Amino acid sequence: MPELELIAAIEAALRRPGKRVLTGPGDDAAVVRAGGVAVTSVDTLAEGVHFTLATHSHADVGHKALAAALSDIAAMGAEPGEAYVALVLPPGASEQAALELVAGMDELAGEAGCAIVGGDVTGGPGLVVSVTVTGWADSEEQLVYRSGARPGDLLGATGALGGSECGRLLLDGLEAELAPDRRDELLARHRRPVPLIAAGKALAGAGATAMIDVSDGVATDAAHLAERSELEVSVRMADLALAPGVDVVAAAAGRDAAELGATGGEDYELLFTAAPGSRPTIEEAAAGAGASVAWIGEAASGSGLRLLDAAGQPVTLRGYEHLAG
Amino acid sequence: MPELELIAAIEAALRRPGKRVLTGPGDDAAVVRAGGVAVTSVDTLAEGVHFTLATHSHADVGHKALAAALSDIAAMGAEPGEAYVALVLPPGASEQAALELVAGMDELAGEAGCAIVGGDVTGGPGLVVSVTVTGWADSEEQLVYRSGARPGDLLGATGALGGSECGRLLLDGLEAELAPDRRDELLARHRRPVPLIAAGKALAGAGATAMIDVSDGVATDAAHLAERSELEVSVRMADLALAPGVDVVAAAAGRDAAELGATGGEDYELLFTAAPGSRPTIEEAAAGAGASVAWIGEAASGSGLRLLDAAGQPVTLRGYEHLAG
Repeated sequence: MPELELIAAIEAALRRPGKRVLTGPGDDAAVVRAGGVAVTSVDTLAEGVHFTLATHSHADVGHKALAAALSDIAAMGAEPGEAYVALVLPPGASEQAALELVAGMDELAGEAGCAIVGGDVTGGPGLVVSVTVTGWADSEEQLVYRSGARPGDLLGATGALGGSECGRLLLDGLEAELAPDRRDELLARHRRPVPLIAAGKALAGAGATAMIDVSDGVATDAAHLAERSELEVSVRMADLALAPGVDVVAAAAGRDAAELGATGGEDYELLFTAAPGSRPTIEEAAAGAGASVAWIGEAASGSGLRLLDAAGQPVTLRGYEHLAG
Repeated sequence: MPELELIAAIEAALRRPGKRVLTGPGDDAAVVRAGGVAVTSVDTLAEGVHFTLATHSHADVGHKALAAALSDIAAMGAEPGEAYVALVLPPGASEQAALELVAGMDELAGEAGCAIVGGDVTGGPGLVVSVTVTGWADSEEQLVYRSGARPGDLLGATGALGGSECGRLLLDGLEAELAPDRRDELLARHRRPVPLIAAGKALAGAGATAMIDVSDGVATDAAHLAERSELEVSVRMADLALAPGVDVVAAAAGRDAAELGATGGEDYELLFTAAPGSRPTIEEAAAGAGASVAWIGEAASGSGLRLLDAAGQPVTLRGYEHLAG
C-alpha cells in the first residue's frame, strides 16, 4: 500500500477530536490552542530491543509506546493532551499490521483523554514506534519535578511492583506454576501497562514533593530522584508491594522476589516523595484515583541510593553499586 | 557506552536555552511556557530509506531530520519553538557518531531559533531519527493552512527547484559536467536543506492564502493544496525557477529539466497561493526575508492538479496521472 494511502487510512481511523485541537492530521502541522505550561515527553520502542512480535501483537506495541509516554506526563502531575506518532515500518509490513498498531494506541488514547493528532509514517530497517506526548497544566506550580524531594520526606510507590518483569520472563518461556488468571495478569502488566494519569494528578495536588514513573525499576528510579533532588534516598526492600505472582515467578527464576520487584522495569507505577505530614492526604488522594500507596523509604541529606534489608541493614544488588552516593 | 551516559553526554551538548523553556532534558518531561497556538510537526529519517551513511555524515542526518520538521513549521507561518528528538542507534553505533548527529542538529537549531529540549535514545535495528518540532503563533489567524486557496489566486514558489533531487542523483553516482562549486551547491541542497522560517512568516504576514513546503516535489505538493483547498491548481512547467545546474544534471540523466524540477522532492522551498492583488506585497515580504518568488500557476474552481507546457497545453507526467482532478 502506498505511503500516502496508508496515512489517509490512519487519519480516517483517528477521528477522536481533542478539546484543544484546532487542526489535526492533514496539514503541514497540527495546531492546538495553548495556555499555561506544556509538558512534553518522547518514548520510542524498537523491535528486537523493546519487544518482539513473537510475544506482542501490533496493538500491544501501539498501546505500550503511548503508555510509556503518557506515564511520563502522569509523573509530572499534568493532564494528557495530544500525541504525535512516528511509525517506521519494515519492508513487507502490512497495512493491516500498521492499522492494528494505531488502533491499539488509539484505544488507550481514548481511555487517557489524549488525542492522536499528528505524526509520520515511513519505511525503515525494522518496526519502530516513537510517541511524543504533550500534557498541559495551568501553571508550573501544579507540576511535580524529580528535583523537589527534601530531607525527611517519605518515599512512596503506587500499586504493585515487579509484575511487568515477571510478564517478560514468562513471555521469554520461563515455566512457573501460576493460575491462568494470575499468569494473564502478569502478561498484561508487561504488554498493556496502564499509565496512572489520575493518580499522578491526585498525588501532585496532595503535596507530592518529587515524582517519577517506574520505568527502569524502583532502585534505578529512586536513584534518579536522589540525584535530581541532591539528597540520599533509601528504599526498604521488605516494604515493596509486589504484584501477585511475583513470589512464584521469582522462585521459578531462582531470584529473590524483593530484588525482582526493586529492579524490574516497565511497571509504570509512580514513585514519589512527600512530607511525613502529608501522608494521610496522599493516601486519600491516591485512593480517590484508584491507587494504593506503599511507603517504602525516605529521603535524607547525602547522596545516592541506599537499599535496606528487613533488619535495616544495607543491601547491595549486583549491578546497582554505582547508584550508591 | 551505556545509554544513560550517552544521554547525559547529549544533554551536556545541548545547552542552548529556549526562551519558553522552564525545564529541559533530565526530568520525566520537558516543560515550556505556552500561549496562543502550538503548531507541531513530526519528521522521521531512516537509514537505507531516506539516506545512506555512504553519502551522508551523521551531522548531515541530524541537520536534515530537524530541517524537514522545521520546514513544516515554516509552511504554517509559525515561529519555531522546541524540538524533541527520538534517536534509534543500530548495534555497534559509536558515541561519537551519536554526538555528531546531535551536534549537526543543534547547529541548525541555533540558526533557526529552536531549542532541543527533550527526547529519547534507544537501540534498534538501524539508524532512525525522528524529530517533533513545536512552533508557536499568537493566534490561529496568523497561520496559513493548505486549505485556504481561493479560485483566482496565483500560485507562487520561493527560491529554486530540483536542486535536492540533482544532489541525490550526483550522490548516487551520476556523472555530470559541473563546476566544482555548482556540484557542491547541489550536494548541499540535498544534504543540508535550509528551512525557510523567515520567508514562511513573511509570506503569512503578507497575505498568502494557503501554503505548503515542497517536500514531495512541486507537482505532488500543488496537488495537496488543490485537494485541501477543494479546487484545481495549475502549474506552468515553463515558469518553474530551477536551481542552477539542474539543466546539466537533467541532461546527464536523460530527463527533462522542468519535469525534474516539478517532481524532485526535498527542496524545502515554500509553495503558496495569494490573491493577484497581493502580488507586490508578497514579493516585497519574501525579498525582505531573503527569498525570491516565481509565479508558476493559479487556482481555479474544479479539482486536482493541472500541469501545463510552455504553450499552455496540458502535460502528463508519468506516475502523476492520479493527481489530476
